[in-house]
Amino acid sequence: MPIEETDRTIASDKVEGTAVYDLDGERLGHIHNFMIDKHSGEVLYAVMSFGGFLGIGEHYHPLPWKVLKYDEERGGYVVGINKDALKDAPRFAADDFPVFDARYGAGVYGYWGVPFPW
Amino acid sequence: MPIEETDRTIASDKVEGTAVYDLDGERLGHIHNFMIDKHSGEVLYAVMSFGGFLGIGEHYHPLPWKVLKYDEERGGYVVGINKDALKDAPRFAADDFPVFDARYGAGVYGYWGVPFPW
Repeated sequence: MPIEETDRTIASDKVEGTAVYDLDGERLGHIHNFMIDKHSGEVLYAVMSFGGFLGIGEHYHPLPWKVLKYDEERGGYVVGINKDALKDAPRFAADDFPVFDARYGAGVYGYWGVPFPW
Repeated sequence: MPIEETDRTIASDKVEGTAVYDLDGERLGHIHNFMIDKHSGEVLYAVMSFGGFLGIGEHYHPLPWKVLKYDEERGGYVVGINKDALKDAPRFAADDFPVFDARYGAGVYGYWGVPFPW
């Protein structure tokens, strides 16, 4: 795969599958995919999968792009939280897909301390 | 895969692989991936693969998100160009990956008549 990364851009399929760690260096999960705003083409959420085994018990955390910091050493993203606190962070189950409307967005972005774009 | 689409959002991995047609309904290629602005989380380019067989002779067209219009009937995106004209549109080969800097962006967005965000 040649199309991957430059100084300021990164390929979607390079980020998908990348590990996410907490502040203590514990692995939380990986980037599953992104939810893109159809109108603006903005990444509204990087969706991190968490837990489960072969898809059973797995759930998802929608993260504003800005809370992901790339850590060269770990070769993955770090979010400013620890694994225990993540229990209280916005999440959804695979069979309970959110509507991702403005109200939902305000809740998620509010939790992470980032202004929601709409 | 439950995480796909709502009124205003769409999953990255749902768009990847979706067919792209020209104004005459001819199939041009498919969405290969996205190049995302690392700072803003904006989709800078939807990268459309074009031509080739088993990767040989294939090349890529970087498209501003806004030039892709979803066509329900065709089940794919339509770009406002025809296949012949696409020869003159910005493109790159798999082994000649662009830097995706502001100069490159101005050229690509200029070609498609969309203001470049930087």
